[in-house]
Amino acid sequence: MASRLFAGLVVLMIACVAVGWPAHSAEETDTNEQLAKQITSLLNQQKEYWNAGDIDGFMRYYWKSDDLTFSAGGKTRRGWGETLRRYREQYPTPEKMGKLTFSELEVRPIGSSAVLVLGRWALEREPDPVSGNFTLVLERHAGRWLIIHDHTSREVITEEE
Amino acid sequence: MASRLFAGLVVLMIACVAVGWPAHSAEETDTNEQLAKQITSLLNQQKEYWNAGDIDGFMRYYWKSDDLTFSAGGKTRRGWGETLRRYREQYPTPEKMGKLTFSELEVRPIGSSAVLVLGRWALEREPDPVSGNFTLVLERHAGRWLIIHDHTSREVITEEE
Repeated sequence: MASRLFAGLVVLMIACVAVGWPAHSAEETDTNEQLAKQITSLLNQQKEYWNAGDIDGFMRYYWKSDDLTFSAGGKTRRGWGETLRRYREQYPTPEKMGKLTFSELEVRPIGSSAVLVLGRWALEREPDPVSGNFTLVLERHAGRWLIIHDHTSREVITEEE
Repeated sequence: MASRLFAGLVVLMIACVAVGWPAHSAEETDTNEQLAKQITSLLNQQKEYWNAGDIDGFMRYYWKSDDLTFSAGGKTRRGWGETLRRYREQYPTPEKMGKLTFSELEVRPIGSSAVLVLGRWALEREPDPVSGNFTLVLERHAGRWLIIHDHTSREVITEEE
């Protein structure tokens, strides 16, 4: 009897390990409200770096991987380095960078270690203020939330989109 | 001895249930390759509906919920009904709908029951062919993959995006 129980015990232990029990027990402690707070605070920090003209600081919140993807203007670019290069190229001066604000943030958990974030962005600047919306997917890597995909659009006036 | 083993057994059973073991054992059987096949096949079906001029059929692959989100042209619209309405409004005729193709599909699992899908789309039509890229997030609902968020961009020529 004891030996059969012991066999069952071993099987269950293996099963628990197989489904990544420790990882889950660590990650699923966050409520949606806690998640929303964490992500909102992260994007606020990121915005502060931008508004200080610090693109390197801004980039800290992106996954430092060649698999980072950044979609904008109908094209998808790949890799942290390319994303940084592009930001530097397109926002060479504080005037171009303008004052960044995020609004209408919506944080939706996907599974236990990823979130989908929707929101609006705006750059106050002269002479050409711009705004639009974004889709972010963040994953928790070693307890830290990182943007693994960013799809950003600017508001356009067209009959179709 | 037997009773202590039994207690351990019960604790582990509770733990396994707590981490959603059954759900995981069902969902995590898909390899990334299987996932990519499932999603590619789904998008092919969806494309066929579009190319048959059947927007209702096309819409079957979107989550039929007020929480469905569809981002395009810098705006985010909400709800399955609104998404359908918008498609009908913007693509009133087979000529406007054109011939849809998807390409460069990239399927990335997020946790055990969601995927991030990147790809390119194109509408062959006269006189104004259009193309761009998209970000989709699909979730498995009762074993069925449904698009819960779509961020679609058309290719634009601008200095910045």
